[in-house]
Amino acid sequence: MVKSFPDLNPTPRILMGPGPSNVHPRVLRAMATPVIGHLDPEFLGIMNDTRDLLKFVFQTKNTFTIAVSATGSAGMETCLVNLIEPGEEVVICVNGVFGERMSDIVGRCGGKLIRVDAPWGRIIAPADLKKTLATCKPKLVALVHAETSTGAWQPIEEISKIVHEAGALLVLDTVTSLGGVPVTLDAWGVDACYSGTQKCLSCPPGLSPVSFNDRAMQAVRARKTKVQSWYLDMTMVERYWGEERFYHHTAPISMIYALREALKIVYEEGLDARFARHMANHRALVAGLHAMGMRMFAQEGHRLPMLNTVWIPEGVDDLKVRKFLLAEHNIELGGGLGAVKGKIWRVGLMGESSTKNNVLLFLGALERAFKAQGYTKLTAGAGVAAAIAAY
Amino acid sequence: MVKSFPDLNPTPRILMGPGPSNVHPRVLRAMATPVIGHLDPEFLGIMNDTRDLLKFVFQTKNTFTIAVSATGSAGMETCLVNLIEPGEEVVICVNGVFGERMSDIVGRCGGKLIRVDAPWGRIIAPADLKKTLATCKPKLVALVHAETSTGAWQPIEEISKIVHEAGALLVLDTVTSLGGVPVTLDAWGVDACYSGTQKCLSCPPGLSPVSFNDRAMQAVRARKTKVQSWYLDMTMVERYWGEERFYHHTAPISMIYALREALKIVYEEGLDARFARHMANHRALVAGLHAMGMRMFAQEGHRLPMLNTVWIPEGVDDLKVRKFLLAEHNIELGGGLGAVKGKIWRVGLMGESSTKNNVLLFLGALERAFKAQGYTKLTAGAGVAAAIAAY
Repeated sequence: MVKSFPDLNPTPRILMGPGPSNVHPRVLRAMATPVIGHLDPEFLGIMNDTRDLLKFVFQTKNTFTIAVSATGSAGMETCLVNLIEPGEEVVICVNGVFGERMSDIVGRCGGKLIRVDAPWGRIIAPADLKKTLATCKPKLVALVHAETSTGAWQPIEEISKIVHEAGALLVLDTVTSLGGVPVTLDAWGVDACYSGTQKCLSCPPGLSPVSFNDRAMQAVRARKTKVQSWYLDMTMVERYWGEERFYHHTAPISMIYALREALKIVYEEGLDARFARHMANHRALVAGLHAMGMRMFAQEGHRLPMLNTVWIPEGVDDLKVRKFLLAEHNIELGGGLGAVKGKIWRVGLMGESSTKNNVLLFLGALERAFKAQGYTKLTAGAGVAAAIAAY
Repeated sequence: MVKSFPDLNPTPRILMGPGPSNVHPRVLRAMATPVIGHLDPEFLGIMNDTRDLLKFVFQTKNTFTIAVSATGSAGMETCLVNLIEPGEEVVICVNGVFGERMSDIVGRCGGKLIRVDAPWGRIIAPADLKKTLATCKPKLVALVHAETSTGAWQPIEEISKIVHEAGALLVLDTVTSLGGVPVTLDAWGVDACYSGTQKCLSCPPGLSPVSFNDRAMQAVRARKTKVQSWYLDMTMVERYWGEERFYHHTAPISMIYALREALKIVYEEGLDARFARHMANHRALVAGLHAMGMRMFAQEGHRLPMLNTVWIPEGVDDLKVRKFLLAEHNIELGGGLGAVKGKIWRVGLMGESSTKNNVLLFLGALERAFKAQGYTKLTAGAGVAAAIAAY
């Protein structure tokens, strides 16, 4: 042999970045289950369970609730390519990386893009959307529930009302929110929604949960042109996941095993308990960061509990701290993207990573990292003490 | 709880259909490895190993050799959406389901489709392609190396010469062939190629190995329009897998673990030994089927060793046999697709499923299934005896 490839043996990490989050051993074991055929009657039962569990976490009765056989970004593309036809007006709300990405995809669909912008870290103001909708007649309005790049937590109810009054479909990105804060598709009237598996569901990346209601599916079926993606064409994927089991592509068997197990864990914990856990750990983390003299980045009152954005203190080097945390503590911390690269950190407390242990450990390790850089504006132990007091 | 979801516990199967094939325990264990961040330096090393191993199985030096984060069908779409711009002429060779699928995608890209057809089960005749290329000036010609729906094994060298003489790019589907018969991208001059993981690589489904040579990448970079798929846009995926590590999407970490391990197993066995094993088991299977009075479906001299298509004998019921094999022997056998549904079976001997044990067991179990239906035109034990003699 020319080259030798060592055994797979990555260092175990504490995942506190923007995702993936840590995966429960039950989910890891599920992936080691022997692979069976994707049209095996037993696998069809596993797909059905997965659908039922996805409906539960999405809080929806939508028949068309499935896992797209690719990662969260493909879920975004799925919603947009199925619902947009060339020449149609589309409103995208942009307050971070993922709104930008949706805008890019609209162009690739030949849609006529109309943007509603808000500064990074802030939510989209319903009044701004309303003003825009008075000037156009879009097929759909898309926005991000939990902006992973900024930590902003968008309220949906008023937005949904405005969108539907304008006769448009509402498309929602719940990649980072699903399983961490309430996502209630039916109550909110969301028409099409996509998510990811590697955030608050604590499943490895590889699938994208997607749900379309009847209105959205009717819009897909009423298209005059074919969906531009064969792989993501929901009229065919529907027949594969549905009663017909019409062969489309080969489902990623082991990833479906993993998703089913991860969703079972969510189901067993219960949504309310899970949301409360995420919120309690968020509050303790923020108390700790404040006590260390740091300021949060996202708009007050609209901060995501699972994705905490914080300004990097002056005199502290972004990369040095992140490398220190990884090398010394095996902690992965997220850096900023785009305009806030080097200026903020993104502290993930998602799914299995949202624990008291991680909060206390992170604050302690961060204090060490600051000290290692000679940063002196800290009261020793203040961060951890404030977090303990917050529980 | 409203509903209870039982533990994941699918019955172990012997996978002898058109894929997935059986997965080695080493690969299953690799998937149970704790997930780390997709931009973690250790994961970047794992991605690099995976690239090196993919270059090995593809027999190529192409820098742009990666695993698309979705299944084989998405690999097909990747090659076509990156290389076709609206209005461009495209020649697709169609002799089965996957040529049909490529034709469908060409339409979705706005390409001008020109077909070269051959009957199902037969290969594309180079002379037919030559005739077509005299009448058009296509950007690319695409064809299938191993037609999973028919079992036909397409020779590539002469086709490649004809395609390049016409100034076109050659796109090749190696979903079922890679790792089972020689696939030599550089020697053949293939410009863009895609494959799947769940066939002769014996990795679970979920990724699509793809390789573009410089000529193909230049064609992508020279586009006047954006690639219609954001997720599959190789100009961005290239920056993610390349030195820059520019964030595009989150790679399916656990699936990459699995692919790296599956490719390591191929590397350790060696390509020649692996191809010889596939061929020996194919010959024994065919000897057995012939001895049982059955006829092969695919064109003689062009039969794939890993995907054996055989006519269902008159008086034998397709579904009854397949259900018997699954219920009594836990063997998954593949049925026919499209025009040959109910008329042929597809016996997979792919990767880990290509063993002497599976050949002997399958022939014995098939004899039992025939007997259970009251089928009398058999000499008892003839199939197994012929296979034994063939080794």
